[in-house]
Parts: sequence; C-alpha cells; structure tokens
Amino acid sequence: MSSNDCKESLSIRQATPSDVGVILELIHAIADYEKLSHQVTANEDTLRDSLFGPHPAAEVCLASWQGVVVGYAVFFHHFSTFEGQRGLYLEDIFIQPDFRGKGIGKALLRHLARLALERDCARFEWLVLDWNQPAMDFYRGLGAEILDDWKLCRMTASSIQKLAHSED
Amino acid sequence: MSSNDCKESLSIRQATPSDVGVILELIHAIADYEKLSHQVTANEDTLRDSLFGPHPAAEVCLASWQGVVVGYAVFFHHFSTFEGQRGLYLEDIFIQPDFRGKGIGKALLRHLARLALERDCARFEWLVLDWNQPAMDFYRGLGAEILDDWKLCRMTASSIQKLAHSED
Repeated sequence: MSSNDCKESLSIRQATPSDVGVILELIHAIADYEKLSHQVTANEDTLRDSLFGPHPAAEVCLASWQGVVVGYAVFFHHFSTFEGQRGLYLEDIFIQPDFRGKGIGKALLRHLARLALERDCARFEWLVLDWNQPAMDFYRGLGAEILDDWKLCRMTASSIQKLAHSED
Repeated sequence: MSSNDCKESLSIRQATPSDVGVILELIHAIADYEKLSHQVTANEDTLRDSLFGPHPAAEVCLASWQGVVVGYAVFFHHFSTFEGQRGLYLEDIFIQPDFRGKGIGKALLRHLARLALERDCARFEWLVLDWNQPAMDFYRGLGAEILDDWKLCRMTASSIQKLAHSED
C-alpha cells in the first residue's frame, strides 16, 4: 500500500459524546492487552460525565481506518513545576491488534505532538509497562526518552480513606 | 514536643498569587535536592500565569511552621480511563531539610487525601525517584503502593517538534 493509500484510509478526529460506547470498548480492549481487566470500573455514564460533562477531565482522539474506529488516544494537561508550564500527558493509546503496522499509532502520536506545540506544552509524557518491549522500542524510535529512575506511587480508595482519616 | 504543640506550630493553606516568590524558591530547593537544577526554567511570570491565570494548570498548598513557609505540594487532576474518572496527581512535594521530622510531609499528604475524597477521586498518584529510599519508605508507610512495572516516557521541545513536523 502506498503512502497516499494510507493517508486516504486513515483519519483522526476528536471524540464526541456519541462516541462513548466505542471509547468504552477500546478501554476494555487495552485492559485485556495489559492483563488488567479486573481494574476496569468505567461505564458509559462515568465516561460521559468525565469526558463530556461541564468539567472535562480528559480529551479523546479517535483513529479510524476505512471509516471504522480502530484506535484511540486519551490525554489531558499536566504541569511541570521545573518549567512552570503545562504539558501534554498521554493517559492511554491503543490500536486494535488487527490494525497495527499501518502507521496508526505514529499518526496519533504525531497528532498529539502537534497539539502540544499549538498549546505551548514544554513536555509530552506518558507511562509504558516495562514488559512491553515493542511499545518501548516504538516510542524510542519516535524520539521519546524512557526514564528508568522514576517509580509510580499509587493510593486507591482504601488507602486514600485511611490517610484522610488518620490522626493529626 | 507534644502533638498539640505540633498542631499549633503547623498550618496548611492554599497558595495565592502573592506566594509566587516563595513557590519559586521551593521549586529551586527541590531541584537542588533532586540534582536537577539545570532543568528549572520556571520564573515568577510563568508561575503566575500557569497557577493563577484564567486557566490554572495546577494548585499549590503551602505548609508553614510557626508562620514561615517551609514546604509545599503542587498538584492537579489527572484521569484514569480504567475508572472513567479523575484522580489527584501530586506533581511535587517538598519540605525544607531543617524542618523534616515534624510531621509536615504527612500533614500535606493527609490534606491532599482529604481533597481527593471531597473531589471524588479514585486515585491519588505521584512519582518518586528510585534512589530516594527515605521517600519510598515514607510513602509506603502511609499506605501507598510503589509500582515497579511502569516507566516514564518523555518528549521535550526538540523531540515534540521533530515528531510534529515528521511526514505523514
């Protein structure tokens, strides 16, 4: 397939409220791929509220191949104190396995890099699972640095509540 | 010192635009501590705009000991697709070295855990440098889980521009 055929087959657009169903399908697909399906509690109502309510917490870009949605990127703005300005943070990117190797992931990341420039973001960051070697190779090939010295700390509902209710 | 003395010595409050100078001092102090001073490009103008402008990118809590600001936490909301709802993300926490061991860091984290509950956040997350064993021990002691399998990917200005301007 030539480069021009790819351009005509592939389109990227911002998601709208009517896409909530397909977004939820993609969340389940990425959770399956990451072996984390047990962690998914999102549903169409929570997504509609958090993505398209009065205070959106994130934005979604959808990638379509020949008119069918086959991938997405979920992102929001974060903030770097060292630079004193906001950045673009990629929460999730996923391409359905049957549609890989067509440049869709790169097109989504390029789309986000362009948004980062337009929105004056000093950094574009995301996390990758350290067993996902193909993903790490892909990101490095696009120019990303993978930092080995940071670790993610997480509190979920029970630990948040325990700390919040602890004694002064 | 008794617990009551600590309560009277310590206060935590949301930062205001007049705190921009002290916030910048704390950013330089944490960068020195993390051996990353060369990365600091923030100044009072960028901070005033990004923290207190029309679209704040983050919030800051200041911790004072006997009326003097000695620490801070910088945070914003992030988003988890798996839960379909926003979380609270701690970008930076820092206590001036002379004021450690007084419970100030725990008080700041407890303050944020309470905000996370009030704001219906499913997760409270942050990053820690893997050589900072005292910090990791402290966070684990408060109930945080430290995840070993995620790595941070980062693009800065030059790599963002290169990707944004790459061929389709």
